[in-house]
Amino acid sequence: MPGKTPSAPKAGVDVPADEPKVELGLLSEVLGFRLRRIQNHLSRSLIERLRRPDVRSGAFSALALIDANPGISQKSLAREIGLDQATVVSIVDALETQGWAQRRRAETDRRRHALSITPVGARVLAEFRTVYLANEAGIYAALSEAERTDLFCLLDKIYGVCFSKD
Amino acid sequence: MPGKTPSAPKAGVDVPADEPKVELGLLSEVLGFRLRRIQNHLSRSLIERLRRPDVRSGAFSALALIDANPGISQKSLAREIGLDQATVVSIVDALETQGWAQRRRAETDRRRHALSITPVGARVLAEFRTVYLANEAGIYAALSEAERTDLFCLLDKIYGVCFSKD
Repeated sequence: MPGKTPSAPKAGVDVPADEPKVELGLLSEVLGFRLRRIQNHLSRSLIERLRRPDVRSGAFSALALIDANPGISQKSLAREIGLDQATVVSIVDALETQGWAQRRRAETDRRRHALSITPVGARVLAEFRTVYLANEAGIYAALSEAERTDLFCLLDKIYGVCFSKD
Repeated sequence: MPGKTPSAPKAGVDVPADEPKVELGLLSEVLGFRLRRIQNHLSRSLIERLRRPDVRSGAFSALALIDANPGISQKSLAREIGLDQATVVSIVDALETQGWAQRRRAETDRRRHALSITPVGARVLAEFRTVYLANEAGIYAALSEAERTDLFCLLDKIYGVCFSKD
């Protein structure tokens, strides 16, 4: 498949003169590599910006989804975040301990939990949002509005087609 | 900014009838969320496919870059993978212990290490490649050739502009 590999645009790259351009080799075919290396940078800078060692990875996503979908189940939350249910249960445990979200038995089905955000959780979420957007501001400055829309649509399409049934 | 948020195409999504469609809420603005949830799925399925607990995250990327760039420095490797240098040094330590890659003092600059892949490492890399491509096959089936090219170009542009100088 190397012949089908798209060539990478390298506009704006300022590699030091003594460092030859790095070839991606086999990685030019691999989406996971491209996702992960951007994610590596975003995660590191987010931790520096947040300065909240009490906030674990996934907490912001869970809180935002609970806020946007009052009464959401842990199963739906897990499906939308892309984590297994056990991990999501432990994230929700932490959110409940912090007083940011709460579980109630669903009225329609007593076996499942309905999640909701607390007023304190809503304030924390608003603070997190500012930090997350600031953390990604450099990326949006590098893309046109149309490129950003294309990128989000392509990533949402992948998730919708490949993973949202899990 | 909510008004500028691109709407997500949801073609092919088959959410169970008893689960209402989940709204992304604030996350509709966040690239990191989109990257991470795809990455979460890819990482889990990759671990299941590889069945190699001795292979740590980042080993395949490092090996592929060393293969494609004989003599590459650890600094360049770290920049291209998006990890800090200490993490990359420990990945290279493991690759050296496994006999898959080796460090030598660079002839032009004795302070830096030049990395190279071993014959065993090259064989392992070829095996890994098959597993990585199989792991992502569902994604490529969901995208047209043009969509895949657009996606890779957009992700490479983000990396090139925002992170390749770090």
